[in-house]
Amino acid sequence: SASMDSGDELRAKFLEFPYVSGAQRNLMLELVSSVETRLGPSLQPCTLPPDIQHFGNPTGTASASLHLRPGLPSSQIDFTLGGWIHCKLPSGGALNITSLSAYLKPSTDAPHFLIELIRSSPTSLVLILDLTPRKDLIFYQDYLKTYYEDTQLDRHRQRLHMLPEVRAYSSPSLYIRAVVSPTAILVCIDIESGEETKMEEIIRDHVSPIAIEVLQFWIESCAGLERHVGEPEIAYLAERDRIIKNKTIEVDLGSSFPRMFGQEVADRVLGALKEYYNK
Amino acid sequence: SASMDSGDELRAKFLEFPYVSGAQRNLMLELVSSVETRLGPSLQPCTLPPDIQHFGNPTGTASASLHLRPGLPSSQIDFTLGGWIHCKLPSGGALNITSLSAYLKPSTDAPHFLIELIRSSPTSLVLILDLTPRKDLIFYQDYLKTYYEDTQLDRHRQRLHMLPEVRAYSSPSLYIRAVVSPTAILVCIDIESGEETKMEEIIRDHVSPIAIEVLQFWIESCAGLERHVGEPEIAYLAERDRIIKNKTIEVDLGSSFPRMFGQEVADRVLGALKEYYNK
Repeated sequence: SASMDSGDELRAKFLEFPYVSGAQRNLMLELVSSVETRLGPSLQPCTLPPDIQHFGNPTGTASASLHLRPGLPSSQIDFTLGGWIHCKLPSGGALNITSLSAYLKPSTDAPHFLIELIRSSPTSLVLILDLTPRKDLIFYQDYLKTYYEDTQLDRHRQRLHMLPEVRAYSSPSLYIRAVVSPTAILVCIDIESGEETKMEEIIRDHVSPIAIEVLQFWIESCAGLERHVGEPEIAYLAERDRIIKNKTIEVDLGSSFPRMFGQEVADRVLGALKEYYNK
Repeated sequence: SASMDSGDELRAKFLEFPYVSGAQRNLMLELVSSVETRLGPSLQPCTLPPDIQHFGNPTGTASASLHLRPGLPSSQIDFTLGGWIHCKLPSGGALNITSLSAYLKPSTDAPHFLIELIRSSPTSLVLILDLTPRKDLIFYQDYLKTYYEDTQLDRHRQRLHMLPEVRAYSSPSLYIRAVVSPTAILVCIDIESGEETKMEEIIRDHVSPIAIEVLQFWIESCAGLERHVGEPEIAYLAERDRIIKNKTIEVDLGSSFPRMFGQEVADRVLGALKEYYNK
């Protein structure tokens, strides 16, 4: 429709984070708001075509919003990508995913930011929260020390694991397991059926404070600090990032999107993102 | 004593794997036997000084054996390192560690082999079993595919996690978390107090078959196959391996050895290993 072509309305659609619980929506809005408040002046408006910013499947059982904002040429930020996906399941339930990632340019080697919340049933939530390393942590021991050891990033993961409802989550994708940092939070939160308020409490009282603190650290110490990276390293970072960006959407969307949205919509969305990543 | 200077007796001391349970000893002996049967002709006898092959602390509460066999110059094997550590704990219990690792030379980029069993109490066993990657798995996606995806190595980890006694183990060292592969088995096996036979069954029926199968795969497909690695890559692998070998003993032994064996013994043992690694 004509109204859906307006950037403001598409942005409002993205910020609805519909279908998810109040606590999950509040968390996503707070994260997006932190990024926009602190980094907004360095970001362009969303540049995706309207039919990539919001779309659904032909039968109306699946819908999604994507919001990609490129950094200004003068900024260290490559782009931020937020989104939500809703898909009714044949079982009667629904799959709901909300995510926010922020990539930096190869002019800095500081980690990228990533959060993803995957709710596949009322009783189960998968949380992925990480500052994704830009370099091989074995070859570059100082990088491991600077961003992950000296910062004591692991304390957030340890704190969350003290909850009895939290257990380690192993992604089925070996690529995802390999790309995240050793302090990555990859957990599954399971509650008893009928205790949905418990999940709300866990998201509000435990997941949210940690996610907000990690994002604050990323904004101040990763996006906000200038690093002096030499020419050969810029080329290395650019190539490694190219692999990360392409592989992440392949793994994240490539396998599930055709099933959820049909091949035509899936090809259009993945094609638009890949075109942007590789231009 | 004079008798302890004989290579045969030091080897016998190593193969005793004393203080550990029958099932753990049988597993270690089977792994060492597999390596010696299949790779023995490519290995030199242990070259460590006698007082590094077997040693204890002044008060007699801690003892250990180390057995390092370099590969012949014509072999792809850099060296194998087996060992056990026993240390009485102030609580009255004991800490017992048995391990076997096998490193390849930079003429191949195939993964190293590593197994470590850490028994800190009768009711708890930590198992680390992995084919350690030689390259950054993000930059070298084909490496991830060849050794970890196409081989379906993850099925062993998945099989073990089906046991209710098994849970994911997170090493306190971020380096250890970063160096292992995405299919690494890092688990803690917990049993109820008084059910020590249950632990024996789990080691015999579940841990052992998996460890033996992973080692067989490593012997045949990693140590046994020639890879054609170019000159610039040999330098990269040599440097990355140098970091891995030094950092692994630092993390593994550097922090605990002075506590267990006193500073003098710890310095002598770590010094001898570092000298060998960096010569």
